[in-house]
Amino acid sequence: MKIVVFGGDGFCGWPTSLHLSAQGHDVLIVDNLARRYTDVELEISSLTPIAPISTRLEAWEQISGRSVKYLNFDVAKEYYRIESLFKEFAPDAVVHFAEQRAAPYSMKSERHKRYTVDNNVAATHNILCGIVESGLDIHVVHLGTMGVYGYGGGAAIPEGYLRVEILTADGRRIPREILHPADPGSIYHMTKTLDQLLFFYYNKNDGVRVTDLHQGVVWGTNTKETKSDPRLINRFDYDGDYGTVLNRFLMQAAIEYPLTVHGKGGQTRAFIHIQDTVRCIELALFNPPERNDRVQIFNQMTETHRVSELAELVAKLTGAKIEHLPNPRKEAADNDLVVEAKSLVELGLKPTRLEKGLLEEVIEIAKRYADRCDRRRIPCTSKWRSDIDLSARPGGSSGLPDRTLASEATT
Amino acid sequence: MKIVVFGGDGFCGWPTSLHLSAQGHDVLIVDNLARRYTDVELEISSLTPIAPISTRLEAWEQISGRSVKYLNFDVAKEYYRIESLFKEFAPDAVVHFAEQRAAPYSMKSERHKRYTVDNNVAATHNILCGIVESGLDIHVVHLGTMGVYGYGGGAAIPEGYLRVEILTADGRRIPREILHPADPGSIYHMTKTLDQLLFFYYNKNDGVRVTDLHQGVVWGTNTKETKSDPRLINRFDYDGDYGTVLNRFLMQAAIEYPLTVHGKGGQTRAFIHIQDTVRCIELALFNPPERNDRVQIFNQMTETHRVSELAELVAKLTGAKIEHLPNPRKEAADNDLVVEAKSLVELGLKPTRLEKGLLEEVIEIAKRYADRCDRRRIPCTSKWRSDIDLSARPGGSSGLPDRTLASEATT
Repeated sequence: MKIVVFGGDGFCGWPTSLHLSAQGHDVLIVDNLARRYTDVELEISSLTPIAPISTRLEAWEQISGRSVKYLNFDVAKEYYRIESLFKEFAPDAVVHFAEQRAAPYSMKSERHKRYTVDNNVAATHNILCGIVESGLDIHVVHLGTMGVYGYGGGAAIPEGYLRVEILTADGRRIPREILHPADPGSIYHMTKTLDQLLFFYYNKNDGVRVTDLHQGVVWGTNTKETKSDPRLINRFDYDGDYGTVLNRFLMQAAIEYPLTVHGKGGQTRAFIHIQDTVRCIELALFNPPERNDRVQIFNQMTETHRVSELAELVAKLTGAKIEHLPNPRKEAADNDLVVEAKSLVELGLKPTRLEKGLLEEVIEIAKRYADRCDRRRIPCTSKWRSDIDLSARPGGSSGLPDRTLASEATT
Repeated sequence: MKIVVFGGDGFCGWPTSLHLSAQGHDVLIVDNLARRYTDVELEISSLTPIAPISTRLEAWEQISGRSVKYLNFDVAKEYYRIESLFKEFAPDAVVHFAEQRAAPYSMKSERHKRYTVDNNVAATHNILCGIVESGLDIHVVHLGTMGVYGYGGGAAIPEGYLRVEILTADGRRIPREILHPADPGSIYHMTKTLDQLLFFYYNKNDGVRVTDLHQGVVWGTNTKETKSDPRLINRFDYDGDYGTVLNRFLMQAAIEYPLTVHGKGGQTRAFIHIQDTVRCIELALFNPPERNDRVQIFNQMTETHRVSELAELVAKLTGAKIEHLPNPRKEAADNDLVVEAKSLVELGLKPTRLEKGLLEEVIEIAKRYADRCDRRRIPCTSKWRSDIDLSARPGGSSGLPDRTLASEATT
């Protein structure tokens, strides 16, 4: 299969590209290195020493005998390069990771809000537009987020579509299956709800085939391929903007910093290991929706945990202390989270369990590279809301049952 | 009241600005003249001879003794000018018309699709972002479209929110009121569904007050103020891209061209006169939602008609012939349309009826300026869909009952 990976140098994109190449696919990465520039902006760097993209690609060719192509351009700003690429490479599918993916980063300032919206919307739209112009039947596999569902408690989160009965003014009931109402908790999450409408429209009007994978919080660092040579190592982010909750706990434990839990840690989140992420992408690529199907939506997560349970687990493994800090987000202190996520397991996913893999992460990554950690970068400094007093406001106005933010790319 | 009108030189924006100024409000127009540049691009011009913006503003000051301020900048691209404007002018409210507003134009090519998405999303987001940064409690009145509702037949279209019962996997029913599921029929309409999510998020997270007015097809040209001097005359678009269905019929009748009906004309549309549009904007400005309310959504239309009925009405008034052409859009040949639109009438709107005003339009506008008409510009040339065969595809996949596109800014 010929596959373009947009955003193929990032945390999910790089291991996905290698995994697909290892399976014998013809992989072409497009990446403008935005995530590396953000490291410069935020004065942070991956805990793991990641190699430049050219070194990565050379190393992969030496190790595997396979070549991964690479183009550096901005998917959001250089539309015509997408058109030429589709014309010349004629991919069967694209994997779309070319979005700003951190909720706290998206909330840092008006500039970060606008960058996240402008970049993410234009990237998705340009890819869809390019597919229509190409005249090719290119399947889009997109990384969404569980955060599109937002509040909704009381009922398990379905895979994308919700069964309802519409109550009409004249007293009738009309049964329907609708796209789950959107209820994003940050600008970043909002862009993924905008993506959903772009997919809905291009699928309906132009017949573009789309699989949208609503992913939970990713943990872990390496996959089989990224482990095979030090030059192929994947990113590990532990900072307040890009570090996911579990990575921050592991890092904090490794440097004997207390594990910082926002609020009482009653928030439940959905998790998935990076090895399972790359496998899910592969499963999605091999199981496109039929030609006239609606957008296919899978929930890409394997287990749920309360943040406080995770902290206790890491504390038990490492002897670290736990510290509770005020929560900057507008969310309930506690929430249950039940997610329907059968589809990918039915297609063949065999989940990596958190308890099994965690110790390896502590030893192989967090402790091994602890001397590269900049302690000042651990706290999250994003101001989530303006100073407007929302105290009188009920918990969200989506009309859905009250439940806290289901999941986030980063916590 | 201090009011900024973004897009205040356009078809709805100009009469709105004058109406609000006439009511004694302090009005400031922001407009980059995009609509006039589009005239140049499409090699068309308004049937009515519209004056340059500076002439318009001078004339208004002479006629009314009131001054309307004006700034020329791009709302989608010059964010920091919005911030400064809010700081210096400190408006109580903004009216947001600064979007590309023609469905056929949005479908002309990939460039037009991308312009429509990039411009409309960034304009709305920049305004919302600027409001949060200003720290002011600025009410946003936005012109949406009935087209966000799309398909949905069998039930009357509610004002924005739909009452449903969620059917859970374990057999429970959870009653909720949700934002009406989006089902746009063009790239233009899609951008208005994206706007809805932007409003939802900024309202929920930052408490921004928003009124979204989902408008039907506008007919008519002038309002009390634009009639008061020839230099104040409003636009009249009759071309295939920007001309609304009724204006095209009037123009066709005036130049003895057959009235062109797409398909059999069974499509039902919602209509409103431009005089009522400006009155609705005023009513919305005076009736903002409460501080902690969700986004307020009104349906801004006063009557519904089948396209074929309109053609017959115009034919009867003018003696024109009717010609049926193939429909470029993917929509049912026939549809019923029932719209709930009580809110604005309850607030004081007294609708102008179509039958009453139509003859005046024929005589005062279409016949009077018929010699300015370029006949070659009347047909719509936008290709609505790619060549992908959608024949096997059921009528949309919104999960809502089958109904054709409820309404469009242009037909």
